[in-house]
Amino acid sequence: MTTQAHEFAHANAERFRQQLMELVRIPSVSAYASTHAGEVRRAAEWIANDMRRIGVQNVELLPTGGNPVVFGEWLSAGANAPTVLMYGHYDVQPAAMKDGWSSEPFEPIIREDGFMYARGSSDDKGQMFTHIKAVESILATRGKLPVNVKFLIEGEEEVGSKNLESFIAANVERLKADVCVISDTGFMHKDQPVITYALRGLTYMEIHVWGPKQDLHSGGYGGIVHNPALALVQILSKMHNADNSVAVPGFYDDVKGLSAEEREAMKATDISIETLKADTGVSQAWGEAAYTLRERIGARPTLEINGLYSGHIEEGAKTVLPARAMAKVSCRLVANQNSVKIYELVRDYVASLTPPTVRSEVKLLNRGEPALTPIDTPAMNAAIRAYEQGWGKAPLFLREGGSIPVVSDFQKYLHTPVLMMGFGLNNDGAHGPDEHYSMEMFHKGIDTMIYLFDEIGAQGK
Amino acid sequence: MTTQAHEFAHANAERFRQQLMELVRIPSVSAYASTHAGEVRRAAEWIANDMRRIGVQNVELLPTGGNPVVFGEWLSAGANAPTVLMYGHYDVQPAAMKDGWSSEPFEPIIREDGFMYARGSSDDKGQMFTHIKAVESILATRGKLPVNVKFLIEGEEEVGSKNLESFIAANVERLKADVCVISDTGFMHKDQPVITYALRGLTYMEIHVWGPKQDLHSGGYGGIVHNPALALVQILSKMHNADNSVAVPGFYDDVKGLSAEEREAMKATDISIETLKADTGVSQAWGEAAYTLRERIGARPTLEINGLYSGHIEEGAKTVLPARAMAKVSCRLVANQNSVKIYELVRDYVASLTPPTVRSEVKLLNRGEPALTPIDTPAMNAAIRAYEQGWGKAPLFLREGGSIPVVSDFQKYLHTPVLMMGFGLNNDGAHGPDEHYSMEMFHKGIDTMIYLFDEIGAQGK
Repeated sequence: MTTQAHEFAHANAERFRQQLMELVRIPSVSAYASTHAGEVRRAAEWIANDMRRIGVQNVELLPTGGNPVVFGEWLSAGANAPTVLMYGHYDVQPAAMKDGWSSEPFEPIIREDGFMYARGSSDDKGQMFTHIKAVESILATRGKLPVNVKFLIEGEEEVGSKNLESFIAANVERLKADVCVISDTGFMHKDQPVITYALRGLTYMEIHVWGPKQDLHSGGYGGIVHNPALALVQILSKMHNADNSVAVPGFYDDVKGLSAEEREAMKATDISIETLKADTGVSQAWGEAAYTLRERIGARPTLEINGLYSGHIEEGAKTVLPARAMAKVSCRLVANQNSVKIYELVRDYVASLTPPTVRSEVKLLNRGEPALTPIDTPAMNAAIRAYEQGWGKAPLFLREGGSIPVVSDFQKYLHTPVLMMGFGLNNDGAHGPDEHYSMEMFHKGIDTMIYLFDEIGAQGK
Repeated sequence: MTTQAHEFAHANAERFRQQLMELVRIPSVSAYASTHAGEVRRAAEWIANDMRRIGVQNVELLPTGGNPVVFGEWLSAGANAPTVLMYGHYDVQPAAMKDGWSSEPFEPIIREDGFMYARGSSDDKGQMFTHIKAVESILATRGKLPVNVKFLIEGEEEVGSKNLESFIAANVERLKADVCVISDTGFMHKDQPVITYALRGLTYMEIHVWGPKQDLHSGGYGGIVHNPALALVQILSKMHNADNSVAVPGFYDDVKGLSAEEREAMKATDISIETLKADTGVSQAWGEAAYTLRERIGARPTLEINGLYSGHIEEGAKTVLPARAMAKVSCRLVANQNSVKIYELVRDYVASLTPPTVRSEVKLLNRGEPALTPIDTPAMNAAIRAYEQGWGKAPLFLREGGSIPVVSDFQKYLHTPVLMMGFGLNNDGAHGPDEHYSMEMFHKGIDTMIYLFDEIGAQGK
């Protein structure tokens, strides 16, 4: 049922788009800490000012070990109304014309296809902004919200949220809520809403192999000194079995199998080989043949090589026997696996594979726990009904292959159910050139968030 | 028997050292083509001027496709006297303090240990200069040489002598000689002369593997798209057998086995595990257990990884599934192997190992044929006697692991025996920091070259 708040949102659609473009123009690239700290802060202040303007209370930039968190709340629904914690991030990935953009990445343009092209249009400024515009539409038409709302909008998601866990741990009372909402995921098709209920965890490592004390002449020493690049290759080649499963002993010990019902349900969100070919250009899929593509992405852990380095990689023929070799390797983890335990398993396996002719070390760079949210809760029912009203279609439940560590942090510190209600598309080009965001989905997203607040409010505490 | 020419060389020892320091001060780094071309030419002109001063005739800088060759000749010994072609190079490897030098690389200094420290002091200015100073000493004392002499001193040895083969092919008449002498190799100990009689050939390749059309998010596609870095690792891991021999089919087909006599003779120049540990810092040797270290270096072909590259190699945890991966791989070849055939074998093997989930290509970057010179020739006898008189000790015969492609070019185009009479040490640090050159060996080298000219002259044509 369309409410006055929805009518307000529709009447102000053009202004909302213009506001989003204003925010997207700020190049708040968190990776460029030394040159863009001012722009990052400017984006945080822009959001804080808009929140103050629409009536959000106690808005402030809270310090962290890195970029500030934009915090704000509206608690006048009273102690008996549920409290919703809205998470998003205002920082963006790097972007430059030379990466293949067809227009300036920080000059947003809405093209005839109905998409806004700009860095951050989808990830996550455009999605996060649906929360604020939904709150604005309700407050502007009713003077109050059906729920208490808190905002936590961070500025380091694109660099690993490395200061967020300690911030949450230190602010449990301030952040306390009955449900958390994150809009930072995507649909597979714009007409079929999805609710993400599983995210994979991450264990990101560097494997180093050292041989001679300095680079050697490959003519003088090749054949009598173990080449660290060869030793690394020999170690890495034993990370997978012939069926493409991971060969690290114990790697699957904590993985729960999929039930027949789960496998049946996952068929609805399977990835077709045609989609895979179109999106990636590969001629065929790869992986564990016993699982569908969606199951491999959503319900199976992986071990990937993210980087390889040794010796002479510039042009030309330098006949060097390198002193060292390095690989960046990361595992995506599924529910019930633990990121530290996986690191220890990989570390011990590499040690067992390292011959006495070289030395090796496995360093843990980054980690995050997997998350699986229950789909039969009252909060999830509210999300389902919100999508049904916003899109005219029931959402599918999706297991995503990526990681959002804050989800498990919310579960761990706030003991709160998390609703991952994305309003982007999987092929928005989130971290690549020509990132874009459907304006239709932006406005439907605002509508859906209004419905969500009403649904959660109607449930009471 | 010491001759007047030797007495002249001894009387002028200090001046010879000063001259060498003058030449070494010119940073004739051929790798820095854009910035150092002037210095490279200055070194060539310095040598040409010194050759003219001592009485060498027809001295000129002959153009090549790259840096000029310094040519000169003294043919007044007559048509019935043998002609000796002297090869060396005036270009040097790059060098900078930041690489770990303990004094400026182009400010030569003779330290109390009796070594001259500077880039090029040993490789090859200092060794090449023994030829010119020997000719000077004979001409200054006798007014004539016992043989005809030609000089070919090139300026691109450190960048692969890429224009030298065509230069030799185009100047066969001008370069025609009865024997070629190269001083660009090293002893294992300064008191034990060696004659290098085998050099390995080289086939230097790049192996490329391509997967998706662009870098992908490892969360979204890891486990369903074959990672090119993994595919490369899987291919490279099949390049060696469990016994560390090379697994490329046909790789050893043209390798001649070592006779019992050859193996016995090679014991004299074997490399001890203690020497290997001291020189490289490794805790143990690696390679084909059925062969001694000298046999592995001197008589067995190898396949080495010289470089590895894929994806994210800078700091931090970028969760990328790379679009491509690359390895630099080179084979050292022994007598009777052919560099093009080996390229074709590796190329076909990589193709056979490449799964349909990725594409691969093997590019040939650089190559050179192996060389094995007979050790029972009159010319070699002259070299043996020259060393016996210059060092007071009979030389050992050595198979080296490195490559000097010009040796096989001389054999191919000039049909000339080649004498590799080095006056450096294996641990002179030729391509590394603190390159140094024994002044004792410099002067003994000049003495030995005088003896060599006399020995060859006495043999007649």
